[in-house]
Amino acid sequence: MLAEVISIGDELASGQRLDTNSQWISQRLGDLGIRVLFHTTVADDLPSNVQALRLAFERVDVVVCTGGLGPTADDLTRQAIADATGTGLVMDDAALDHIRALFARRKRAMPERNNIQAMFPRGSRVIPNPHGSAPGIDMDIPREGRSPCRVFALPGVPAEMREMWQATVEPALALATSHQRRVIRHRQIKCFGVGESDLEQMLPDLIRRGRSPSVGITVHQATITLRISAEAESVEACFAAMEPTAATIRECLGELIFGDEEEELQHAVIRMLAQRKQTLAIAEWGTGGLVSNWLSEVGDAANVFLGSFVVRGETALTESLAVPQHVLEQHSAASREVASAMAAACRERFRADFGLAIGPFPPGDEQPPDSGRVHFALDSSQGIQCKSSPFVGHPDILKARSGKQALDLLRLSLR
Amino acid sequence: MLAEVISIGDELASGQRLDTNSQWISQRLGDLGIRVLFHTTVADDLPSNVQALRLAFERVDVVVCTGGLGPTADDLTRQAIADATGTGLVMDDAALDHIRALFARRKRAMPERNNIQAMFPRGSRVIPNPHGSAPGIDMDIPREGRSPCRVFALPGVPAEMREMWQATVEPALALATSHQRRVIRHRQIKCFGVGESDLEQMLPDLIRRGRSPSVGITVHQATITLRISAEAESVEACFAAMEPTAATIRECLGELIFGDEEEELQHAVIRMLAQRKQTLAIAEWGTGGLVSNWLSEVGDAANVFLGSFVVRGETALTESLAVPQHVLEQHSAASREVASAMAAACRERFRADFGLAIGPFPPGDEQPPDSGRVHFALDSSQGIQCKSSPFVGHPDILKARSGKQALDLLRLSLR
Repeated sequence: MLAEVISIGDELASGQRLDTNSQWISQRLGDLGIRVLFHTTVADDLPSNVQALRLAFERVDVVVCTGGLGPTADDLTRQAIADATGTGLVMDDAALDHIRALFARRKRAMPERNNIQAMFPRGSRVIPNPHGSAPGIDMDIPREGRSPCRVFALPGVPAEMREMWQATVEPALALATSHQRRVIRHRQIKCFGVGESDLEQMLPDLIRRGRSPSVGITVHQATITLRISAEAESVEACFAAMEPTAATIRECLGELIFGDEEEELQHAVIRMLAQRKQTLAIAEWGTGGLVSNWLSEVGDAANVFLGSFVVRGETALTESLAVPQHVLEQHSAASREVASAMAAACRERFRADFGLAIGPFPPGDEQPPDSGRVHFALDSSQGIQCKSSPFVGHPDILKARSGKQALDLLRLSLR
Repeated sequence: MLAEVISIGDELASGQRLDTNSQWISQRLGDLGIRVLFHTTVADDLPSNVQALRLAFERVDVVVCTGGLGPTADDLTRQAIADATGTGLVMDDAALDHIRALFARRKRAMPERNNIQAMFPRGSRVIPNPHGSAPGIDMDIPREGRSPCRVFALPGVPAEMREMWQATVEPALALATSHQRRVIRHRQIKCFGVGESDLEQMLPDLIRRGRSPSVGITVHQATITLRISAEAESVEACFAAMEPTAATIRECLGELIFGDEEEELQHAVIRMLAQRKQTLAIAEWGTGGLVSNWLSEVGDAANVFLGSFVVRGETALTESLAVPQHVLEQHSAASREVASAMAAACRERFRADFGLAIGPFPPGDEQPPDSGRVHFALDSSQGIQCKSSPFVGHPDILKARSGKQALDLLRLSLR
């Protein structure tokens, strides 16, 4: 079974808004074992919509549309489906009653133009929209010599779309695909500490086309995600098929792996500290609050991450963090000595088990790219550990990568 | 002139990755006066790619593709363009030399498979890629009885794609569209402090279909953006046409407006402080480093934003920030008194002109949604100002909105 996702609207085609619905729907279709071959975004133009729908009805078996179901003149999806299928629009009385009731509950008169939202292509079914005035459309499109193509049209508002998907579309598709009894599931293994190509070389021939289960590799701000995907007759069979691959990856990569699924380094670090009932304080210079923000977003960090100092200059270092003046007189700001003093000071001020510090970034963009290093330090009852790393790469990721390098220093020391 | 944007890759069609390139390219095409009618995303499947390209060559005048130019077996864009146009692939020696030199600089031997990246559809032009091994393709597709369709194929890596767009594609399209002498320009006016529908009611009938210049309204994490768009024969004429609308908006909204274009509240605050040569320190509890991170990302904040304390509990408050113990004994943590003490303490510790504090968030998700308030305080030579706001709304935006409310307290006091 093949699918196409169509999103409708000038604001999407023109780039004024980013389409996130298509990604979400594609993931859900994939989990049902339905392969998505195309996404199409089309402007608010009736002939273009009719053309896009007709093409989709030919080339795939399931079409999911979002948008264009509102009450205004530029909402064309109902008409486009009617035109593409050569049917007319007819009024659905139950849908009209629902829309009227919705306005009554908001104590507003229903404007005349909302009538159009109760019009449906002849032969289609209504998809209820509990929280909005735009019901969806579910229709079988007959095809000569083939099984019909099934089209679902949903509103573009993500919350309404998702609610209707879960209540109506997903059960309908699960039923329609039940005979094929194939599902797809994924696992993610998260790694940090080496580059993508070095990591790929550490794995046996896992990342190649046609392998089953398949393994994909993506990098985002220096975090590497290995994604295993399996197709089987049940969810359990998918996970059973993936386990040997996951075991091979764990064996090859060892301590480069810090977590699973949606975990980031901050989740791993908080989890390890919570297990040991230990606490953490941070001092950030170059990363200016980024690591504090990451840690404070971890749900169960309340009793682990105590707080942080963000400093942005030498005066702040001595005045607020109380790093001794002589350290700054004897060493440059970007030095292991200053990072160590920051780590010790924040650990002491917060009375934490661990103090983790990120020193200042080497100054200036015009320097040779490998002229400077960022220094990290970790202070604990075991003493001080230091690390530094060259300050090279695209400016957009330097801050995030430096923050992750600091968290990784802590993670490895907790192992 | 009409355009289509095609993004290529299984990871996009399956929803594993979100496509942001198509939005970016559509915005750039719009600025050149080229209307985007379609986006198409297509999986790594040669017949599907050929079909998508042939359709685009028929229905629009400019096609911009991203992705599928890498060296591996699932990179199909070169072959798909050659197949869709009935041409073959030929080696470009200069492109091959460039790729070889790139590997030499990284002190690595060029793998055999990278040869394919120097193969181009016969009759096409090479788009140089200064920082990557995937050059782009620029080709005219002849069409019977019509002007040719022009296709540009660029890599999917956003940084490389954007660099090549700006260096090569945009100048080429500007030249190609120079005869039509129509350009589109946008202005953005940024507002904070009221809800979307309240703000809309403060404006005369500006946000309606068919108005020229048009005005659109979008909300992101409580920041409201008004976007004015005009089409005219020159950039100057666009801006002249937009100015009366902008003036009306400024008159109606007054101090709700904090900036223009891509500015956020932190840019506005840093700009105002820099003009007055004054400094700022922050104490964050509920927002856990978010505001510090925002402020430290403003390019010219070095001498303005001195640093911050992130505290996450009462012990941290008295130990690290040195808020007097008696304040906590007499008042609950979520109180104006604690926020005021935080503001005064961080101002003093950093010796800053302004100390801005965000108190803790009301505890627990199970409380009635309007049972708690977040408290903000600003300390300066003028004394202490306090504000609080009800802690209601979707959890995803509560943290960002609270951080913005604190910055807005400072902004309004600087006016």
